[in-house]
Amino acid sequence: MAEIHFRDIQEAHARIRPHVRRTPVMTSARLNELAGAEIFFKCENFQKTGSFKARGAVNAVLSLTDAEAARGVATHSSGNHAAALSWAAGMRGIRATVVMPRTASPVKIASVERYGGRIEFCEPNHRAREEAAARIVRDTGAALIHPYNDPRIIAGQGTAAVELLEDVPGLDAVACPVGGGGLLAGSAVAAKALLPAIRVLAGEPEGAADASLSLRSGVRRPVENPSSVADGLLAFVGDLTFPVMQRHVEEIATVTDASIIAAMRLLFNVLKIAVEPSGAVAYAAVSERRLRVAGKRVGVILSGGNVDLERMLG
Amino acid sequence: MAEIHFRDIQEAHARIRPHVRRTPVMTSARLNELAGAEIFFKCENFQKTGSFKARGAVNAVLSLTDAEAARGVATHSSGNHAAALSWAAGMRGIRATVVMPRTASPVKIASVERYGGRIEFCEPNHRAREEAAARIVRDTGAALIHPYNDPRIIAGQGTAAVELLEDVPGLDAVACPVGGGGLLAGSAVAAKALLPAIRVLAGEPEGAADASLSLRSGVRRPVENPSSVADGLLAFVGDLTFPVMQRHVEEIATVTDASIIAAMRLLFNVLKIAVEPSGAVAYAAVSERRLRVAGKRVGVILSGGNVDLERMLG
Repeated sequence: MAEIHFRDIQEAHARIRPHVRRTPVMTSARLNELAGAEIFFKCENFQKTGSFKARGAVNAVLSLTDAEAARGVATHSSGNHAAALSWAAGMRGIRATVVMPRTASPVKIASVERYGGRIEFCEPNHRAREEAAARIVRDTGAALIHPYNDPRIIAGQGTAAVELLEDVPGLDAVACPVGGGGLLAGSAVAAKALLPAIRVLAGEPEGAADASLSLRSGVRRPVENPSSVADGLLAFVGDLTFPVMQRHVEEIATVTDASIIAAMRLLFNVLKIAVEPSGAVAYAAVSERRLRVAGKRVGVILSGGNVDLERMLG
Repeated sequence: MAEIHFRDIQEAHARIRPHVRRTPVMTSARLNELAGAEIFFKCENFQKTGSFKARGAVNAVLSLTDAEAARGVATHSSGNHAAALSWAAGMRGIRATVVMPRTASPVKIASVERYGGRIEFCEPNHRAREEAAARIVRDTGAALIHPYNDPRIIAGQGTAAVELLEDVPGLDAVACPVGGGGLLAGSAVAAKALLPAIRVLAGEPEGAADASLSLRSGVRRPVENPSSVADGLLAFVGDLTFPVMQRHVEEIATVTDASIIAAMRLLFNVLKIAVEPSGAVAYAAVSERRLRVAGKRVGVILSGGNVDLERMLG
């Protein structure tokens, strides 16, 4: 099984740096007071394509040989990875084919189209998505770029934590959302390599708590019918990301949809920024004091900002 | 009548720099394309207290002698100036008394209280506000800090344009919202001093277009019952700010409430930031191509971010 080393993340960083944004780190005395901790927000909502997914996608696309790239890339995703991969492929001038469920939101379809991705619709279930993607790979020779269970993706996602620790040295902890675990695994490897004493934490939606469950059980265990307002975090933790989490992640807290919405509103009202539900999950856990960071300096990754305004009202 | 010179703005900048944020400048290829111009957004929605008003308020408060300061400051305002003055007074450890209409929004009352301002409520009309403020000044000896018709305020507000032109040299134009004209007058003096060829532009709500009307007439003329979703821009242009506008402002475009709301939504969806209606007015004018900036490099001041989430839905 492919291991992820810090040197992969460093190489990814060098590779993607000209193409992604070095997102800012924001702070707020008022939010610190609320959480009883000193929070440094890494604003990946300002990242290209509106989420950290741009990092992994462009790393994967730029890692292809010219021969591989010529056959294009493919993925199945209804969310931020689809848009990010379309954008990254467009930058390299190659084709991206994205399998999306017929039921995907118009906003997300429009976003993939804006970045030049070619969409193939399928029935809205996991099996149909995987089969459609496999067929495209078979027919076109496109490289399959999985949303999280891919070493190139994990290495790319880890670059956000590298920047955060460059900008705010000596953090006591770093917290990020967990869905399939690409961001969490990448962040964990980066943070522990740069600062072995750092604690790696995560927030997970209560209705899709397969990562918490799996860590407790010691084996990957899906939950049935995962459901949450954090629509980017419904994926099942991967067999590449899970061992990294077992080794490096100290704590995962689950949060309710209500607390995710409350966190989004606080970020909007105080920091004046748009963060999508999935992007606010780690902050929700910190702000509700469900992670042990009292009095500590904690980096919180706000992973994306692609939210429909209407959804902000919960 | 007090003249505003660039040197006043430079002195204000040196005075307030340790206390205010140097707000970032954001850009977006997509918004450029929509507007047919290259836009540099000066993000005063990220300013302390959530608006540029922090600049003028802290400049005015720090300009007081110790003897003046000891008697406190007073103002009448139901909006961002009230919060900014309360915050600035708190930093100097002096009392701020703010006359607010009984009907002021709970959010704004809470904001003044959070910054330690003392509120005196009055009937919701201009005369009652002025009388109450005058009485406080008479009874307590507090210094009246007018929201815009005050040279210290105008000089403070001009510092945002100074930073914008430091960060983006050689702009063709700068555009800001206009209500009472403090931000516009300060920006005009700063911009023309730094770059005489720059064009100074403004956006104004259609329902409160006294600045446009006054510039056309050559004399200050109020409009009856001004009304707009841009609640920070209902004030009547001042006798200090108007002559500056006559000398320096090339163009004011009026925009409808619908276009202000559309501009807020675009800024939210694309830049991922919260901008209040008043803060989005200059961008609304640029984005609807109502100002002559086609193909030009234009700095747009997003003046504040204090918006109730519910209002975003218009």
